[in-house]
Amino acid sequence: MVKAISIGLLGLGTVGSGVVKIIENHQDKLMHQIGCPILIKKVLVKDIEKERRVSIDENLLTLNPSEILEDPEIDAVIEVMGGIELTREYLLKALANNKHIVTANKDLMALHGPELLAAASRNNCDLFYEASVAGGIPILRGLVDGLSSDRITKLMGIVNGTTNFILTKMSKNGSAYEEVLREAQELGFAEADPSSDVSGLDAARKMAILATLGFSMNIDLADVKVRGITEISEEDLKYSKKLGYTMKLIGLASRDGDKVEVSVQPALLPEGHPLAGVNNEYNAVYVYGEAVGETMFYGPGAGSLPTATAIVSDLVAVLKNLRLGVNGKSAVSPQFSKLLKKPAEIFAKYFIRIHVKDEVGVLANITLLFAEHGVGFDKILQLPLKDKDYSEIVLVTHTASLRDYECILQKLESYEMVKGIESTYRVEGENIL
Amino acid sequence: MVKAISIGLLGLGTVGSGVVKIIENHQDKLMHQIGCPILIKKVLVKDIEKERRVSIDENLLTLNPSEILEDPEIDAVIEVMGGIELTREYLLKALANNKHIVTANKDLMALHGPELLAAASRNNCDLFYEASVAGGIPILRGLVDGLSSDRITKLMGIVNGTTNFILTKMSKNGSAYEEVLREAQELGFAEADPSSDVSGLDAARKMAILATLGFSMNIDLADVKVRGITEISEEDLKYSKKLGYTMKLIGLASRDGDKVEVSVQPALLPEGHPLAGVNNEYNAVYVYGEAVGETMFYGPGAGSLPTATAIVSDLVAVLKNLRLGVNGKSAVSPQFSKLLKKPAEIFAKYFIRIHVKDEVGVLANITLLFAEHGVGFDKILQLPLKDKDYSEIVLVTHTASLRDYECILQKLESYEMVKGIESTYRVEGENIL
Repeated sequence: MVKAISIGLLGLGTVGSGVVKIIENHQDKLMHQIGCPILIKKVLVKDIEKERRVSIDENLLTLNPSEILEDPEIDAVIEVMGGIELTREYLLKALANNKHIVTANKDLMALHGPELLAAASRNNCDLFYEASVAGGIPILRGLVDGLSSDRITKLMGIVNGTTNFILTKMSKNGSAYEEVLREAQELGFAEADPSSDVSGLDAARKMAILATLGFSMNIDLADVKVRGITEISEEDLKYSKKLGYTMKLIGLASRDGDKVEVSVQPALLPEGHPLAGVNNEYNAVYVYGEAVGETMFYGPGAGSLPTATAIVSDLVAVLKNLRLGVNGKSAVSPQFSKLLKKPAEIFAKYFIRIHVKDEVGVLANITLLFAEHGVGFDKILQLPLKDKDYSEIVLVTHTASLRDYECILQKLESYEMVKGIESTYRVEGENIL
Repeated sequence: MVKAISIGLLGLGTVGSGVVKIIENHQDKLMHQIGCPILIKKVLVKDIEKERRVSIDENLLTLNPSEILEDPEIDAVIEVMGGIELTREYLLKALANNKHIVTANKDLMALHGPELLAAASRNNCDLFYEASVAGGIPILRGLVDGLSSDRITKLMGIVNGTTNFILTKMSKNGSAYEEVLREAQELGFAEADPSSDVSGLDAARKMAILATLGFSMNIDLADVKVRGITEISEEDLKYSKKLGYTMKLIGLASRDGDKVEVSVQPALLPEGHPLAGVNNEYNAVYVYGEAVGETMFYGPGAGSLPTATAIVSDLVAVLKNLRLGVNGKSAVSPQFSKLLKKPAEIFAKYFIRIHVKDEVGVLANITLLFAEHGVGFDKILQLPLKDKDYSEIVLVTHTASLRDYECILQKLESYEMVKGIESTYRVEGENIL
């Protein structure tokens, strides 16, 4: 009998239970690949008595992290407890004790990724985190291994299932944000406190991780400009559709020369774009490489078993490395220093919806303002409003720099004939199709 | 100065030129990852004088394969010459001389994959072939590494760009097969002799490779049932659309318990299925795993630079292994012996279009025949034909075994009231949505 490899689990919630299930149910396949059984030796929990989603020997449960972090027989630690500061301490201790790490913790990796990866490297340990971005989709591997020879110039991701579910339902049924959010909470697609999802923060963490790997440059969470979905109205979705677009919460990372931009915002995609068809709770990451062109990775972005698949696949990689004695050698440190684009260097097309006084010459004045900044239009719609003194103008611009566009917005707001800028969104994915 | 790693190229056609370009243009990124420069030491060609798509020092070109296969300074060989028997000999010789191999050759891998992989393993050599399936899409890595912990139960692939281009144009414009084929040839999306594409053979080779990896079972080309696109009529596409389906040439590999089915055929997918939106020359592989659920990998299926990206990414993997001294250790031999499903074990829904005599009771008789075999219907259309003595019936069945369905087809053909079975196709992707 070959000796089993022992692992410890930090956490036994939704994802942790999935990990236990996969290791049990797929033991044969795992053993065929790594040549020995995988034994879960200890599981850190907060409450021993709590009812679990998975049946597990109570003797494996512990309240004491040292029973995992300091057990010399444990080779690898799977972190599925969440949290940031305490978790960081635990993982640093595990690495100091030469334990390999697999984590699903995007919050942690987005904030302390470089520190943890450096600690892993010092201790000849692997630290893998495929599950931290887009659940079951093997996108980090796709970027790091599959496209290792290419130069990635753009990443666009639908990397938050909750907001994609909400936007899909709003678009399909013409329902209001609050109503769909309630439905999503009832169905378990949104948490009781959905703020980190709907504010875009969750997506921003994932984009920091993706951009760091895709551009080989340390991108911090603070570098990501974030806007959430809470202000999107039914009108915005109605006009998007009318103009041939689909609204998605898009994580965007783009590179021109040495400089990059990383952001998360609701954006309009042309209906035929591969990302426009990614619906409900699904995730997808679209990758544009200089040589490969367009590729896309699609799948479930969350959920117990999909996320656990990514974790156990990472564990298989750790254990294969262990057999070959090459742990801690696969990470490649960032090649470039970080250079962020300034607003004058960020170019995009914009959708803007304005309420204006219904007077002669208003549209002429507005288009003149854009023209003075060298910005033309792709699409123009003017419609009457219920209040007959005002009308609604919807414009889609040609490409403009963010600096020019912000300047235009400021001036528009100061115009007496403009009642208000109702909304504005970036339009993405058109130049590439 | 770190010593360069030397490689040899067999072939300098479309893909070979792409490999040379990527190694030149991305030398910095490659060097950052593998820690030393990559030097192309020799390139086997058929004609030294021929004009090339890439500028290359003529002294590197050779007509003599031994200058690559027997040069002890060459560490890895990239095979982009195509062909089968001679190529097999070359690669076996290269492996015997301890050279690692990267190949894009699906014909070779579908026929002689197991032999070549065994030879690689004996010689502690890597043999990678990501580029052989779906060009720039890192699907083999996705299956082998990304989903290593899961049990794959179904693979559906649009893995031939030529036929996908033809079917997309036929569907969009309502044009006839021959007309679109001519257009595809003019645009370079179909070869002068398109037979291996349109017959489904090319897709079958790729499915043999995908099924072998996905199911960990040696699937031979001869195990793949193949039907091409040459018989698809404009009527078939018209009715498909009317019933809410999109026609695609689908490579299908499915597993129930220990038994598998691998086939290539035109099939109808519901319009909302992720594969239904894969258009023109693009490829995609949809993977269904027990734990992960649905995932899809999308991208360019062919072309000089996309295919070369996959090759050079494989080369990076070889060279990283070389640095760690672990070449030849990553291949996992098939876990299961091959068990193919019998017709009674293959279940699907079918679309069938029949011309029948326009008489009372005909539809009743036909539906009765299906009912006698326990097969019901999802959708039924009956329409008059120009020839008023006949009418057209289009049926979509519920799930039936292939044995029952073939039996029904035989009996239908013997019915005096049936003028002819115009066409029949599998309907896929409905049970999973």
